[in-house]
Amino acid sequence: MDGVTPITPARLSLNTATTKNWTLREAVDGAARAGLQAVGLWRDRVAEVGTGRAAAMVRDAGLRVSSLCRGGFLTAADPATAAIALNDNRAAVDEAAELGAPVLVMVVGGLPTGNRNLAAARVRAGERIAELVPYARQRSVQLALEPLHPMYCADRAVISTLKQALDMAADHPAADVGVVIDSFHTWWDPELPLQIQRAGAERRIASYQICDWNLPIASDALLSRGMMGDGFIDFAAITRWVDAAGYRGDIEVEIFSADIWARDGDAVVGLMIERYRALIEPFLIG
Amino acid sequence: MDGVTPITPARLSLNTATTKNWTLREAVDGAARAGLQAVGLWRDRVAEVGTGRAAAMVRDAGLRVSSLCRGGFLTAADPATAAIALNDNRAAVDEAAELGAPVLVMVVGGLPTGNRNLAAARVRAGERIAELVPYARQRSVQLALEPLHPMYCADRAVISTLKQALDMAADHPAADVGVVIDSFHTWWDPELPLQIQRAGAERRIASYQICDWNLPIASDALLSRGMMGDGFIDFAAITRWVDAAGYRGDIEVEIFSADIWARDGDAVVGLMIERYRALIEPFLIG
Repeated sequence: MDGVTPITPARLSLNTATTKNWTLREAVDGAARAGLQAVGLWRDRVAEVGTGRAAAMVRDAGLRVSSLCRGGFLTAADPATAAIALNDNRAAVDEAAELGAPVLVMVVGGLPTGNRNLAAARVRAGERIAELVPYARQRSVQLALEPLHPMYCADRAVISTLKQALDMAADHPAADVGVVIDSFHTWWDPELPLQIQRAGAERRIASYQICDWNLPIASDALLSRGMMGDGFIDFAAITRWVDAAGYRGDIEVEIFSADIWARDGDAVVGLMIERYRALIEPFLIG
Repeated sequence: MDGVTPITPARLSLNTATTKNWTLREAVDGAARAGLQAVGLWRDRVAEVGTGRAAAMVRDAGLRVSSLCRGGFLTAADPATAAIALNDNRAAVDEAAELGAPVLVMVVGGLPTGNRNLAAARVRAGERIAELVPYARQRSVQLALEPLHPMYCADRAVISTLKQALDMAADHPAADVGVVIDSFHTWWDPELPLQIQRAGAERRIASYQICDWNLPIASDALLSRGMMGDGFIDFAAITRWVDAAGYRGDIEVEIFSADIWARDGDAVVGLMIERYRALIEPFLIG
Protein backbone atom coordinates (compact mmCIF):
# COMPACT_ATOMS: atom_id res chain seq x y z
CA MET A 1 0.00 0.00 0.00
CA ASP A 2 3.10 2.29 0.14
CA GLY A 3 1.69 3.99 3.22
CA VAL A 4 -1.40 5.13 1.37
CA THR A 5 -4.64 4.19 3.14
CA PRO A 6 -7.15 3.06 0.55
CA ILE A 7 -10.33 5.07 0.46
CA THR A 8 -13.20 3.23 2.14
CA PRO A 9 -15.80 2.23 -0.46
CA ALA A 10 -18.42 4.98 -0.72
CA ARG A 11 -21.42 2.69 -1.19
CA LEU A 12 -20.67 0.24 1.60
CA SER A 13 -23.01 0.53 4.58
CA LEU A 14 -22.81 -1.12 7.98
CA ASN A 15 -26.13 -2.58 9.06
CA THR A 16 -26.28 -2.48 12.84
CA ALA A 17 -27.32 -6.15 12.93
CA THR A 18 -23.76 -7.04 11.89
CA THR A 19 -22.29 -5.52 15.05
CA LYS A 20 -25.15 -6.47 17.28
CA ASN A 21 -23.31 -5.91 20.53
CA TRP A 22 -22.53 -2.31 19.69
CA THR A 23 -24.91 0.37 20.91
CA LEU A 24 -26.06 2.89 18.32
CA ARG A 25 -23.38 5.29 19.58
CA GLU A 26 -20.71 2.63 19.19
CA ALA A 27 -21.94 1.58 15.74
CA VAL A 28 -22.02 5.16 14.47
CA ASP A 29 -18.57 5.83 15.86
CA GLY A 30 -17.23 2.53 14.54
CA ALA A 31 -18.60 3.19 11.06
CA ALA A 32 -17.18 6.73 11.02
CA ARG A 33 -13.83 5.51 12.35
CA ALA A 34 -13.62 3.03 9.46
CA GLY A 35 -14.39 5.76 6.94
CA LEU A 36 -17.83 4.45 6.02
CA GLN A 37 -20.45 6.93 4.84
CA ALA A 38 -23.65 5.07 5.69
CA VAL A 39 -25.30 2.87 8.28
CA GLY A 40 -28.40 0.71 8.08
CA LEU A 41 -30.31 0.96 11.34
CA TRP A 42 -32.52 -1.46 13.21
CA ARG A 43 -35.37 0.04 15.15
CA ASP A 44 -34.22 -1.40 18.47
CA ARG A 45 -30.93 0.48 18.14
CA VAL A 46 -32.80 3.69 17.30
CA ALA A 47 -35.14 3.19 20.24
CA GLU A 48 -32.16 3.15 22.61
CA VAL A 49 -31.77 6.90 22.29
CA GLY A 50 -34.98 8.02 20.58
CA THR A 51 -35.43 8.82 16.91
CA GLY A 52 -34.48 12.50 17.08
CA ARG A 53 -31.25 11.88 18.92
CA ALA A 54 -30.43 8.93 16.66
CA ALA A 55 -30.90 11.11 13.58
CA ALA A 56 -28.64 13.80 15.05
CA MET A 57 -26.03 11.26 16.06
CA VAL A 58 -25.80 9.83 12.54
CA ARG A 59 -25.82 13.29 10.94
CA ASP A 60 -23.20 14.71 13.30
CA ALA A 61 -20.91 11.80 12.49
CA GLY A 62 -21.14 12.72 8.82
CA LEU A 63 -23.06 9.55 7.95
CA ARG A 64 -26.33 8.88 6.17
CA VAL A 65 -28.93 6.23 6.94
CA SER A 66 -29.12 3.72 4.09
CA SER A 67 -32.26 1.99 5.39
CA LEU A 68 -34.35 1.40 8.45
CA CYS A 69 -35.02 -2.23 9.41
CA ARG A 70 -37.79 -3.00 9.64
CA GLY A 71 -41.54 -2.83 9.20
CA GLY A 72 -43.86 -5.67 8.35
CA PHE A 73 -45.40 -8.64 10.17
CA LEU A 74 -48.66 -7.70 8.56
CA THR A 75 -50.24 -11.08 7.90
CA ALA A 76 -52.50 -11.49 10.96
CA ALA A 77 -55.87 -12.99 10.12
CA ASP A 78 -57.79 -11.12 12.83
CA PRO A 79 -58.54 -7.40 12.46
CA ALA A 80 -57.41 -6.42 15.97
CA THR A 81 -53.91 -7.83 15.53
CA ALA A 82 -53.75 -6.39 12.03
CA ALA A 83 -54.66 -2.93 13.34
CA ILE A 84 -51.89 -3.09 15.93
CA ALA A 85 -49.42 -4.14 13.23
CA LEU A 86 -50.49 -1.31 10.93
CA ASN A 87 -50.06 1.21 13.75
CA ASP A 88 -46.60 -0.10 14.45
CA ASN A 89 -45.75 0.15 10.77
CA ARG A 90 -46.92 3.77 10.64
CA ALA A 91 -44.60 4.45 13.57
CA ALA A 92 -41.77 2.79 11.64
CA VAL A 93 -42.50 5.03 8.64
CA ASP A 94 -42.37 8.08 10.91
CA GLU A 95 -39.04 6.94 12.29
CA ALA A 96 -37.63 6.36 8.81
CA ALA A 97 -38.72 9.85 7.77
CA GLU A 98 -37.20 11.48 10.84
CA LEU A 99 -33.95 9.55 10.33
CA GLY A 100 -33.77 10.58 6.70
CA ALA A 101 -33.82 6.90 5.73
CA PRO A 102 -35.05 6.69 2.15
CA VAL A 103 -36.14 3.11 2.61
CA LEU A 104 -38.12 1.13 5.17
CA VAL A 105 -37.34 -2.58 4.80
CA MET A 106 -40.51 -4.68 5.02
CA VAL A 107 -40.48 -8.28 6.23
CA VAL A 108 -44.14 -9.04 5.68
CA GLY A 109 -44.66 -11.81 8.24
CA GLY A 110 -45.40 -15.54 8.17
CA LEU A 111 -48.48 -17.65 8.77
CA PRO A 112 -50.68 -16.61 11.68
CA THR A 113 -50.62 -19.11 14.55
CA GLY A 114 -52.61 -22.23 13.73
CA ASN A 115 -53.48 -20.98 10.24
CA ARG A 116 -52.11 -22.89 7.24
CA ASN A 117 -53.66 -20.86 4.44
CA LEU A 118 -50.53 -19.55 2.78
CA ALA A 119 -52.26 -18.11 -0.27
CA ALA A 120 -54.57 -16.06 1.95
CA ALA A 121 -51.67 -14.78 4.05
CA ARG A 122 -49.98 -13.63 0.87
CA VAL A 123 -53.09 -11.77 -0.21
CA ARG A 124 -53.38 -10.07 3.18
CA ALA A 125 -49.73 -9.01 3.04
CA GLY A 126 -50.40 -7.27 -0.25
CA GLU A 127 -53.54 -5.60 1.02
CA ARG A 128 -51.82 -4.24 4.12
CA ILE A 129 -48.85 -2.96 2.15
CA ALA A 130 -51.38 -1.12 -0.03
CA GLU A 131 -52.93 0.35 3.10
CA LEU A 132 -49.56 1.70 4.23
CA VAL A 133 -48.49 3.17 0.91
CA PRO A 134 -50.29 6.56 1.12
CA TYR A 135 -48.97 7.13 4.63
CA ALA A 136 -45.40 6.33 3.58
CA ARG A 137 -45.65 8.37 0.38
CA GLN A 138 -46.64 11.49 2.32
CA ARG A 139 -43.45 11.09 4.33
CA SER A 140 -41.26 10.30 1.30
CA VAL A 141 -40.40 6.84 2.58
CA GLN A 142 -40.21 3.99 0.10
CA LEU A 143 -41.48 0.64 1.38
CA ALA A 144 -38.99 -2.03 0.32
CA LEU A 145 -40.45 -5.53 0.17
CA GLU A 146 -37.89 -8.11 1.18
CA PRO A 147 -38.24 -11.67 -0.06
CA LEU A 148 -36.91 -13.95 2.65
CA HIS A 149 -35.41 -17.38 2.11
CA PRO A 150 -38.17 -20.00 1.84
CA MET A 151 -36.95 -21.52 5.11
CA TYR A 152 -38.60 -18.52 6.83
CA CYS A 153 -41.91 -18.78 4.98
CA ALA A 154 -43.84 -20.22 7.92
CA ASP A 155 -42.75 -17.77 10.58
CA ARG A 156 -41.28 -14.60 9.08
CA ALA A 157 -42.12 -13.80 5.48
CA VAL A 158 -44.63 -15.30 3.10
CA ILE A 159 -42.80 -13.44 0.33
CA SER A 160 -40.25 -16.06 -0.69
CA THR A 161 -38.99 -14.93 -4.09
CA LEU A 162 -38.00 -11.71 -5.80
CA LYS A 163 -40.65 -12.37 -8.44
CA GLN A 164 -43.32 -12.45 -5.75
CA ALA A 165 -42.06 -9.19 -4.24
CA LEU A 166 -42.08 -7.53 -7.66
CA ASP A 167 -45.56 -8.84 -8.43
CA MET A 168 -46.80 -7.34 -5.17
CA ALA A 169 -44.94 -4.07 -5.77
CA ALA A 170 -46.45 -3.81 -9.25
CA ASP A 171 -49.67 -2.41 -7.82
CA HIS A 172 -47.80 0.75 -6.80
CA PRO A 173 -45.45 3.35 -8.27
CA ALA A 174 -41.77 2.43 -7.90
CA ALA A 175 -41.13 5.51 -5.76
CA ASP A 176 -43.59 4.12 -3.21
CA VAL A 177 -42.79 0.39 -3.22
CA GLY A 178 -39.45 -1.15 -4.07
CA VAL A 179 -37.72 -4.43 -3.30
CA VAL A 180 -34.70 -5.54 -1.31
CA ILE A 181 -32.26 -7.94 -2.91
CA ASP A 182 -30.50 -9.82 -0.13
CA SER A 183 -27.91 -12.33 -1.30
CA PHE A 184 -28.59 -14.75 1.56
CA HIS A 185 -32.29 -14.94 0.85
CA THR A 186 -32.20 -15.10 -2.94
CA TRP A 187 -28.97 -16.71 -4.13
CA TRP A 188 -30.55 -20.12 -4.79
CA ASP A 189 -33.34 -18.77 -7.03
CA PRO A 190 -33.07 -20.02 -10.63
CA GLU A 191 -34.95 -16.89 -11.74
CA LEU A 192 -32.68 -14.50 -9.88
CA PRO A 193 -30.87 -12.95 -12.87
CA LEU A 194 -34.16 -12.52 -14.73
CA GLN A 195 -35.97 -10.98 -11.77
CA ILE A 196 -33.05 -8.66 -10.91
CA GLN A 197 -33.12 -7.44 -14.49
CA ARG A 198 -36.86 -6.89 -14.19
CA ALA A 199 -36.44 -5.09 -10.86
CA GLY A 200 -33.96 -2.77 -12.49
CA ALA A 201 -36.15 -2.12 -15.51
CA GLU A 202 -38.98 -1.27 -13.14
CA ARG A 203 -36.58 0.89 -11.06
CA ARG A 204 -37.58 -0.93 -7.91
CA ILE A 205 -34.24 -2.00 -6.42
CA ALA A 206 -34.36 -0.17 -3.11
CA SER A 207 -31.51 -1.97 -1.37
CA TYR A 208 -28.80 -4.54 -2.02
CA GLN A 209 -27.91 -6.39 1.17
CA ILE A 210 -25.04 -8.82 1.31
CA CYS A 211 -23.88 -11.69 3.44
CA ASP A 212 -23.01 -15.30 2.73
CA TRP A 213 -24.84 -18.62 2.98
CA ASN A 214 -22.87 -20.83 5.35
CA LEU A 215 -23.35 -24.45 6.34
CA PRO A 216 -24.36 -26.05 8.53
CA ILE A 217 -27.53 -24.05 9.06
CA ALA A 218 -27.23 -22.63 12.59
CA SER A 219 -29.32 -24.25 15.30
CA ASP A 220 -31.07 -20.88 15.51
CA ALA A 221 -31.83 -20.66 11.81
CA LEU A 222 -31.94 -16.88 11.97
CA LEU A 223 -28.23 -16.83 12.71
CA SER A 224 -27.07 -18.81 9.69
CA ARG A 225 -25.51 -15.93 7.84
CA GLY A 226 -21.83 -15.52 7.25
CA MET A 227 -19.24 -13.02 6.11
CA MET A 228 -18.97 -12.67 2.36
CA GLY A 229 -16.45 -15.17 1.07
CA ASP A 230 -16.92 -17.68 3.89
CA GLY A 231 -19.82 -19.54 2.28
CA PHE A 232 -21.38 -20.65 -0.99
CA ILE A 233 -22.60 -17.48 -2.68
CA ASP A 234 -21.18 -16.27 -5.97
CA PHE A 235 -21.00 -12.53 -5.20
CA ALA A 236 -19.38 -11.74 -8.52
CA ALA A 237 -22.42 -13.03 -10.39
CA ILE A 238 -25.09 -11.43 -8.21
CA THR A 239 -23.26 -8.11 -7.94
CA ARG A 240 -22.85 -7.97 -11.72
CA TRP A 241 -26.59 -8.57 -12.16
CA VAL A 242 -27.52 -5.88 -9.64
CA ASP A 243 -25.06 -3.47 -11.20
CA ALA A 244 -26.23 -4.19 -14.74
CA ALA A 245 -29.79 -3.56 -13.55
CA GLY A 246 -28.73 0.01 -12.85
CA TYR A 247 -28.63 -0.02 -9.06
CA ARG A 248 -26.29 2.69 -7.76
CA GLY A 249 -27.37 2.88 -4.13
CA ASP A 250 -25.89 1.69 -0.86
CA ILE A 251 -24.77 -1.88 -0.34
CA GLU A 252 -25.46 -3.00 3.21
CA VAL A 253 -23.71 -5.77 5.05
CA GLU A 254 -26.24 -7.43 7.33
CA ILE A 255 -24.96 -10.52 9.11
CA PHE A 256 -26.81 -12.35 11.85
CA SER A 257 -24.23 -14.72 13.27
CA ALA A 258 -23.25 -15.71 16.79
CA ASP A 259 -19.69 -16.17 15.55
CA ILE A 260 -19.49 -12.68 14.03
CA TRP A 261 -21.16 -11.13 17.05
CA ALA A 262 -18.58 -12.68 19.36
CA ARG A 263 -15.75 -10.87 17.59
CA ASP A 264 -14.43 -7.36 18.14
CA GLY A 265 -16.62 -4.83 16.31
CA ASP A 266 -13.78 -2.92 14.68
CA ALA A 267 -12.28 -6.17 13.43
CA VAL A 268 -15.62 -7.17 11.89
CA VAL A 269 -15.96 -3.80 10.16
CA GLY A 270 -12.40 -4.09 8.90
CA LEU A 271 -13.00 -7.59 7.54
CA MET A 272 -16.26 -6.50 5.95
CA ILE A 273 -14.44 -3.69 4.11
CA GLU A 274 -11.69 -6.06 2.99
CA ARG A 275 -14.19 -8.63 1.66
CA TYR A 276 -16.22 -5.91 -0.03
CA ARG A 277 -13.11 -4.71 -1.83
CA ALA A 278 -12.28 -8.24 -2.97
CA LEU A 279 -15.70 -9.69 -3.75
CA ILE A 280 -18.07 -6.83 -4.53
CA GLU A 281 -16.28 -3.70 -5.70
CA PRO A 282 -14.53 -5.27 -8.72
CA PHE A 283 -17.94 -6.14 -10.15
CA LEU A 284 -19.46 -2.68 -9.87
CA ILE A 285 -19.24 -0.52 -12.93
CA GLY A 286 -21.77 2.08 -11.84
CA MET B 1 -65.89 -48.07 14.49
CA ASP B 2 -68.52 -50.68 15.54
CA GLY B 3 -65.86 -53.36 15.47
CA VAL B 4 -65.18 -52.84 11.77
CA THR B 5 -61.53 -52.28 11.00
CA PRO B 6 -61.27 -49.58 8.34
CA ILE B 7 -59.50 -50.62 5.18
CA THR B 8 -55.95 -49.29 5.02
CA PRO B 9 -55.69 -46.72 2.23
CA ALA B 10 -54.57 -48.43 -0.96
CA ARG B 11 -52.31 -45.63 -2.20
CA LEU B 12 -50.45 -44.98 1.03
CA SER B 13 -46.82 -46.14 1.00
CA LEU B 14 -44.32 -46.35 3.83
CA ASN B 15 -40.96 -44.93 2.87
CA THR B 16 -38.30 -46.75 4.86
CA ALA B 17 -36.76 -43.43 5.92
CA THR B 18 -39.79 -42.88 8.17
CA THR B 19 -39.00 -45.96 10.25
CA LYS B 20 -35.26 -45.61 10.01
CA ASN B 21 -34.48 -47.97 12.85
CA TRP B 22 -36.34 -50.83 11.23
CA THR B 23 -34.37 -53.23 9.06
CA LEU B 24 -35.82 -53.98 5.65
CA ARG B 25 -37.35 -57.15 7.04
CA GLU B 26 -38.96 -55.21 9.89
CA ALA B 27 -40.20 -52.45 7.58
CA VAL B 28 -41.75 -54.93 5.14
CA ASP B 29 -43.39 -56.86 7.98
CA GLY B 30 -44.56 -53.64 9.65
CA ALA B 31 -46.08 -52.34 6.44
CA ALA B 32 -47.83 -55.64 5.74
CA ARG B 33 -49.06 -55.89 9.34
CA ALA B 34 -50.65 -52.45 8.97
CA GLY B 35 -52.38 -53.47 5.76
CA LEU B 36 -50.31 -51.23 3.51
CA GLN B 37 -49.74 -52.29 -0.09
CA ALA B 38 -46.54 -50.44 -0.92
CA VAL B 39 -43.17 -49.43 0.47
CA GLY B 40 -40.67 -46.84 -0.75
CA LEU B 41 -37.18 -48.19 -0.31
CA TRP B 42 -33.86 -46.54 0.38
CA ARG B 43 -30.82 -48.17 -1.16
CA ASP B 44 -29.09 -48.70 2.19
CA ARG B 45 -32.04 -50.82 3.34
CA VAL B 46 -31.93 -52.82 0.12
CA ALA B 47 -28.17 -53.29 0.44
CA GLU B 48 -28.68 -54.97 3.82
CA VAL B 49 -29.92 -58.11 2.16
CA GLY B 50 -29.05 -57.64 -1.50
CA THR B 51 -31.38 -56.54 -4.27
CA GLY B 52 -32.69 -59.97 -5.25
CA ARG B 53 -33.59 -60.95 -1.71
CA ALA B 54 -35.11 -57.53 -1.08
CA ALA B 55 -37.29 -57.87 -4.16
CA ALA B 56 -38.45 -61.32 -3.04
CA MET B 57 -39.09 -60.11 0.49
CA VAL B 58 -41.35 -57.31 -0.70
CA ARG B 59 -43.13 -59.53 -3.23
CA ASP B 60 -43.65 -62.39 -0.77
CA ALA B 61 -45.23 -59.96 1.67
CA GLY B 62 -47.74 -58.97 -0.99
CA LEU B 63 -46.34 -55.47 -1.32
CA ARG B 64 -45.09 -53.41 -4.24
CA VAL B 65 -42.20 -50.95 -4.33
CA SER B 66 -43.48 -47.43 -4.92
CA SER B 67 -40.04 -45.91 -5.50
CA LEU B 68 -36.36 -46.42 -4.90
CA CYS B 69 -34.50 -43.61 -3.11
CA ARG B 70 -32.22 -42.51 -4.51
CA GLY B 71 -29.93 -41.68 -7.37
CA GLY B 72 -28.29 -38.37 -8.12
CA PHE B 73 -25.35 -36.36 -6.75
CA LEU B 74 -24.34 -35.77 -10.30
CA THR B 75 -22.96 -32.23 -10.19
CA ALA B 76 -19.22 -32.86 -9.80
CA ALA B 77 -17.10 -30.50 -11.86
CA ASP B 78 -14.30 -32.98 -12.49
CA PRO B 79 -14.75 -35.86 -14.94
CA ALA B 80 -13.38 -38.56 -12.62
CA THR B 81 -15.87 -37.85 -9.85
CA ALA B 82 -18.64 -37.50 -12.41
CA ALA B 83 -17.81 -40.90 -13.88
CA ILE B 84 -17.97 -42.52 -10.44
CA ALA B 85 -21.33 -40.87 -9.83
CA LEU B 86 -22.70 -42.02 -13.18
CA ASN B 87 -21.61 -45.59 -12.46
CA ASP B 88 -23.33 -45.49 -9.11
CA ASN B 89 -26.48 -44.15 -10.73
CA ARG B 90 -26.48 -46.96 -13.29
CA ALA B 91 -26.27 -49.38 -10.36
CA ALA B 92 -29.25 -47.62 -8.77
CA VAL B 93 -31.21 -48.00 -12.01
CA ASP B 94 -30.38 -51.71 -12.05
CA GLU B 95 -31.57 -52.06 -8.48
CA ALA B 96 -34.81 -50.22 -9.24
CA ALA B 97 -35.46 -52.52 -12.19
CA GLU B 98 -34.77 -55.65 -10.17
CA LEU B 99 -37.02 -54.42 -7.36
CA GLY B 100 -39.82 -53.64 -9.79
CA ALA B 101 -39.70 -50.01 -8.65
CA PRO B 102 -41.22 -47.92 -11.43
CA VAL B 103 -39.41 -44.81 -10.23
CA LEU B 104 -35.88 -43.91 -9.19
CA VAL B 105 -35.92 -40.70 -7.15
CA MET B 106 -33.11 -38.36 -8.20
CA VAL B 107 -31.57 -35.82 -5.83
CA VAL B 108 -29.21 -34.17 -8.25
CA GLY B 109 -26.54 -32.87 -5.86
CA GLY B 110 -25.31 -29.49 -4.68
CA LEU B 111 -22.31 -27.32 -5.44
CA PRO B 112 -18.98 -29.14 -5.77
CA THR B 113 -16.56 -28.33 -2.92
CA GLY B 114 -15.09 -24.88 -3.30
CA ASN B 115 -17.09 -24.13 -6.44
CA ARG B 116 -19.71 -21.36 -6.32
CA ASN B 117 -20.91 -21.49 -9.91
CA LEU B 118 -24.53 -22.48 -9.33
CA ALA B 119 -25.65 -21.94 -12.91
CA ALA B 120 -22.93 -24.28 -14.19
CA ALA B 121 -23.80 -26.95 -11.61
CA ARG B 122 -27.39 -26.81 -12.80
CA VAL B 123 -26.30 -27.28 -16.40
CA ARG B 124 -24.15 -30.26 -15.45
CA ALA B 125 -27.04 -31.84 -13.55
CA GLY B 126 -29.16 -31.67 -16.69
CA GLU B 127 -26.40 -33.09 -18.89
CA ARG B 128 -25.80 -36.04 -16.59
CA ILE B 129 -29.49 -36.83 -16.30
CA ALA B 130 -29.55 -36.88 -20.10
CA GLU B 131 -26.64 -39.29 -20.05
CA LEU B 132 -28.53 -41.66 -17.76
CA VAL B 133 -31.83 -41.61 -19.62
CA PRO B 134 -31.10 -44.25 -22.28
CA TYR B 135 -29.78 -46.64 -19.64
CA ALA B 136 -32.85 -46.19 -17.47
CA ARG B 137 -35.25 -46.40 -20.41
CA GLN B 138 -33.86 -49.78 -21.42
CA ARG B 139 -34.68 -51.00 -17.93
CA SER B 140 -38.12 -49.38 -17.80
CA VAL B 141 -37.16 -47.17 -14.88
CA GLN B 142 -38.41 -43.59 -14.83
CA LEU B 143 -35.96 -41.06 -13.40
CA ALA B 144 -37.90 -38.76 -11.08
CA LEU B 145 -36.26 -35.38 -10.53
CA GLU B 146 -36.87 -34.14 -7.01
CA PRO B 147 -36.73 -30.44 -6.31
CA LEU B 148 -35.36 -30.00 -2.80
CA HIS B 149 -36.10 -27.10 -0.48
CA PRO B 150 -33.81 -24.15 -1.29
CA MET B 151 -32.14 -24.62 2.10
CA TYR B 152 -30.43 -27.66 0.57
CA CYS B 153 -29.28 -25.91 -2.61
CA ALA B 154 -25.62 -25.64 -1.57
CA ASP B 155 -25.09 -29.21 -0.47
CA ARG B 156 -27.79 -31.55 -1.80
CA ALA B 157 -29.79 -30.39 -4.79
CA VAL B 158 -29.32 -27.48 -7.15
CA ILE B 159 -32.88 -28.18 -8.35
CA SER B 160 -34.85 -25.95 -5.97
CA THR B 161 -38.28 -25.59 -7.58
CA LEU B 162 -40.78 -27.77 -9.38
CA LYS B 163 -40.56 -25.44 -12.38
CA GLN B 164 -36.84 -26.08 -12.61
CA ALA B 165 -37.36 -29.85 -12.42
CA LEU B 166 -40.00 -29.68 -15.14
CA ASP B 167 -37.81 -27.48 -17.33
CA MET B 168 -35.02 -30.05 -17.02
CA ALA B 169 -37.39 -32.96 -17.63
CA ALA B 170 -38.75 -31.26 -20.74
CA ASP B 171 -35.79 -32.49 -22.77
CA HIS B 172 -37.06 -36.05 -22.40
CA PRO B 173 -40.25 -38.09 -22.86
CA ALA B 174 -42.40 -38.20 -19.73
CA ALA B 175 -42.03 -41.97 -19.51
CA ASP B 176 -38.30 -41.48 -19.06
CA VAL B 177 -38.10 -38.44 -16.80
CA GLY B 178 -40.72 -37.37 -14.29
CA VAL B 179 -40.75 -35.25 -11.15
CA VAL B 180 -41.32 -35.84 -7.46
CA ILE B 181 -43.65 -33.51 -5.60
CA ASP B 182 -42.62 -33.54 -1.94
CA SER B 183 -44.74 -31.35 0.31
CA PHE B 184 -41.82 -30.48 2.60
CA HIS B 185 -39.65 -29.22 -0.23
CA THR B 186 -42.24 -27.34 -2.24
CA TRP B 187 -45.03 -26.05 0.04
CA TRP B 188 -43.65 -22.48 0.18
CA ASP B 189 -43.48 -22.04 -3.60
CA PRO B 190 -45.85 -19.35 -4.89
CA GLU B 191 -45.91 -21.14 -8.25
CA LEU B 192 -46.73 -24.54 -6.77
CA PRO B 193 -50.36 -24.82 -7.97
CA LEU B 194 -49.38 -23.66 -11.44
CA GLN B 195 -46.43 -26.01 -11.72
CA ILE B 196 -48.36 -29.00 -10.33
CA GLN B 197 -50.99 -28.35 -12.98
CA ARG B 198 -48.25 -28.21 -15.60
CA ALA B 199 -46.65 -31.40 -14.27
CA GLY B 200 -49.99 -33.13 -14.58
CA ALA B 201 -50.62 -31.85 -18.08
CA GLU B 202 -47.19 -33.13 -19.07
CA ARG B 203 -47.91 -36.44 -17.26
CA ARG B 204 -44.69 -36.15 -15.31
CA ILE B 205 -45.82 -36.59 -11.70
CA ALA B 206 -43.87 -39.69 -10.75
CA SER B 207 -44.33 -39.52 -7.00
CA TYR B 208 -46.17 -37.55 -4.34
CA GLN B 209 -44.27 -37.62 -1.04
CA ILE B 210 -45.71 -36.17 2.11
CA CYS B 211 -44.48 -34.93 5.45
CA ASP B 212 -44.85 -31.66 7.32
CA TRP B 213 -42.71 -28.54 7.75
CA ASN B 214 -42.05 -28.15 11.47
CA LEU B 215 -40.31 -25.41 13.38
CA PRO B 216 -37.77 -24.83 14.70
CA ILE B 217 -35.59 -26.16 11.92
CA ALA B 218 -33.69 -29.09 13.45
CA SER B 219 -30.05 -28.53 14.33
CA ASP B 220 -29.37 -31.17 11.70
CA ALA B 221 -31.38 -29.48 8.97
CA LEU B 222 -31.96 -32.80 7.23
CA LEU B 223 -34.09 -33.94 10.15
CA SER B 224 -36.56 -31.06 10.15
CA ARG B 225 -39.50 -32.98 8.80
CA GLY B 226 -42.58 -33.80 10.78
CA MET B 227 -45.68 -35.96 10.73
CA MET B 228 -48.51 -34.55 8.62
CA GLY B 229 -50.64 -32.28 10.76
CA ASP B 230 -47.89 -31.36 13.22
CA GLY B 231 -46.57 -28.42 11.21
CA PHE B 232 -47.44 -25.64 8.80
CA ILE B 233 -48.37 -27.35 5.54
CA ASP B 234 -51.85 -27.13 4.06
CA PHE B 235 -52.22 -30.75 2.89
CA ALA B 236 -55.76 -30.21 1.73
CA ALA B 237 -54.63 -27.61 -0.79
CA ILE B 238 -51.58 -29.46 -2.10
CA THR B 239 -53.37 -32.82 -2.26
CA ARG B 240 -56.25 -31.26 -4.20
CA TRP B 241 -53.79 -29.79 -6.70
CA VAL B 242 -51.96 -33.10 -7.14
CA ASP B 243 -55.25 -34.94 -7.49
CA ALA B 244 -56.68 -32.42 -9.96
CA ALA B 245 -53.49 -32.81 -11.98
CA GLY B 246 -54.48 -36.42 -12.53
CA TYR B 247 -51.99 -38.19 -10.30
CA ARG B 248 -53.32 -41.58 -9.25
CA GLY B 249 -50.12 -43.22 -8.00
CA ASP B 250 -48.72 -44.01 -4.59
CA ILE B 251 -48.42 -41.43 -1.88
CA GLU B 252 -45.31 -41.98 0.19
CA VAL B 253 -44.73 -40.81 3.71
CA GLU B 254 -41.06 -39.93 4.07
CA ILE B 255 -40.12 -38.35 7.38
CA PHE B 256 -36.59 -37.67 8.54
CA SER B 257 -36.95 -36.82 12.21
CA ALA B 258 -35.06 -37.80 15.33
CA ASP B 259 -38.33 -37.53 17.25
CA ILE B 260 -40.21 -39.88 14.92
CA TRP B 261 -37.28 -42.28 14.76
CA ALA B 262 -37.23 -42.53 18.56
CA ARG B 263 -40.79 -43.87 18.62
CA ASP B 264 -42.08 -47.40 18.19
CA GLY B 265 -42.28 -48.26 14.51
CA ASP B 266 -45.79 -49.73 14.60
CA ALA B 267 -47.03 -46.63 16.41
CA VAL B 268 -45.50 -44.40 13.76
CA VAL B 269 -47.12 -46.43 10.99
CA GLY B 270 -50.45 -46.29 12.81
CA LEU B 271 -50.22 -42.54 13.26
CA MET B 272 -49.23 -42.09 9.64
CA ILE B 273 -52.32 -44.01 8.52
CA GLU B 274 -54.54 -41.98 10.85
CA ARG B 275 -53.17 -38.67 9.60
CA TYR B 276 -53.43 -39.81 5.99
CA ARG B 277 -57.10 -40.61 6.53
CA ALA B 278 -57.74 -37.21 8.07
CA LEU B 279 -55.55 -34.92 5.98
CA ILE B 280 -55.00 -36.56 2.60
CA GLU B 281 -57.69 -39.06 1.70
CA PRO B 282 -60.65 -36.64 1.89
CA PHE B 283 -59.04 -34.55 -0.84
CA LEU B 284 -58.48 -37.35 -3.30
CA ILE B 285 -61.13 -37.82 -5.90
CA GLY B 286 -59.13 -40.04 -8.21
